[in-house]
Amino acid sequence: MELLEKRIAKDGTISGTEILRVDSFLNHQIDVALLREMGREWKRLYEGEEITKILTIEASGIALACLAAEEFEVPVVFAKKSQSRNVVGEVYRTRVASFTHGCVYDVVVSKKYLNPEDKVLIIDDFLANGAALCGLCDLVRQAGATVVGCGIAIEKAFQPGGDDLRRLGIRIESLARIASMDEKTGITFVH
Amino acid sequence: MELLEKRIAKDGTISGTEILRVDSFLNHQIDVALLREMGREWKRLYEGEEITKILTIEASGIALACLAAEEFEVPVVFAKKSQSRNVVGEVYRTRVASFTHGCVYDVVVSKKYLNPEDKVLIIDDFLANGAALCGLCDLVRQAGATVVGCGIAIEKAFQPGGDDLRRLGIRIESLARIASMDEKTGITFVH
Repeated sequence: MELLEKRIAKDGTISGTEILRVDSFLNHQIDVALLREMGREWKRLYEGEEITKILTIEASGIALACLAAEEFEVPVVFAKKSQSRNVVGEVYRTRVASFTHGCVYDVVVSKKYLNPEDKVLIIDDFLANGAALCGLCDLVRQAGATVVGCGIAIEKAFQPGGDDLRRLGIRIESLARIASMDEKTGITFVH
Repeated sequence: MELLEKRIAKDGTISGTEILRVDSFLNHQIDVALLREMGREWKRLYEGEEITKILTIEASGIALACLAAEEFEVPVVFAKKSQSRNVVGEVYRTRVASFTHGCVYDVVVSKKYLNPEDKVLIIDDFLANGAALCGLCDLVRQAGATVVGCGIAIEKAFQPGGDDLRRLGIRIESLARIASMDEKTGITFVH
C-alpha cells in the first residue's frame, strides 16, 4: 500500500537493521485518517470473504482493528495481555513471547466473545517472528472458530514469521512488507 | 446519552454495588457502531472548542479515542502504562493507582507528541476515583499544553473522581452517569 510505504519512509525511524519505530503515526501517536485508509484496503483485499469478527491484541492493535471493523461492520475483540479483574469467567489462554518487551506473557480472551461460528480476521500492527499472530490463531483454534486471514500493517519480511505462517496455509495481507532496512541506506520494500 | 444508557442497562453486568462490567460492547468486545455515535456526541458537546489532539491511556481508551478523533479530525496520543522499548527518548511521566488492577503503575508519553500549543481533549472509558484522569491531566500540564476537557464513557457518579475534578475547573462530559447500582435493583442514572 503506497500511502503506508511513503509514510514509513518519511516518518519511520530505523535503529540498526531490525528496529523500526512508527510511533509518530501508528502506535503511540495515531494518524486516524491513515488508519481509515488501511481499513479500507483490508476490506478491499478481503472482499467476498465472510468475516464476523476482528480479533486483535492490546494495545497498539486496537486502533487498527477498530477502524477496520467499521469497514467490515463487525465487532472487534481484543485479547488481553494478562488476566485482570476485568476479565471474569472462562477464558481461552495462550502464551506469547514479546521481542519488543523481552518477556513472555499470557494472553486471554473471554470464551463469550469467540464462538465456533465465528469467521475471524486477525489484525495487528507488526509481523516479525509471528509470535503474537500464532498466539491469536491459537485462541481462534481453541474456540473452534475459523481464521479467514490476517491483516498486518507492517511485515518485516526479512524475519521468518510471515512466510512460516503462509506455509501453514494462513492468508496474510501485509500493507507494507519490508525487505531490508538500514540506518544509512533506509528501507527497501517487497513488491 | 440515551443510546449508551440503554446499552449499559441491557448488556452491563453488575457485581455488588461498585463493579460494572461492559466487556461485551466497550472494553473487551467492542461495538464500533456504538463508539462512533459516542464520538459524535463528544463532538457535539465540544462544538466551538479548539481541539488539536486527543489523549487517552492504553488499552481500553484507545478504541473510544480513535473513533472520536475521526470526528474531531485530530491525532490520538495514547499514554503507555510502562516504558517499553517502543518508547525511546524523553518522556513525560506520572503515576496512576489502578482500582481495577490493584496496583500503581507508571504512565508515560513521549515529549514529541504533546506540545505547549496543544489543546487536548482527554478520553477514557471509566471515571470513578479519577486516578487515571488526574494522571493524564498531569502529563498535559507537564507539557505546558491545555486541557480543554474530558470525554468519559461511563462515570460512576457515586464515587468522588468526577466531582473532585469539576471542582478543580476541569470540564468533564460523561455520556452516562451512574447514580447507583445494585445487583438486584439494577442501575439508576443521573439526569
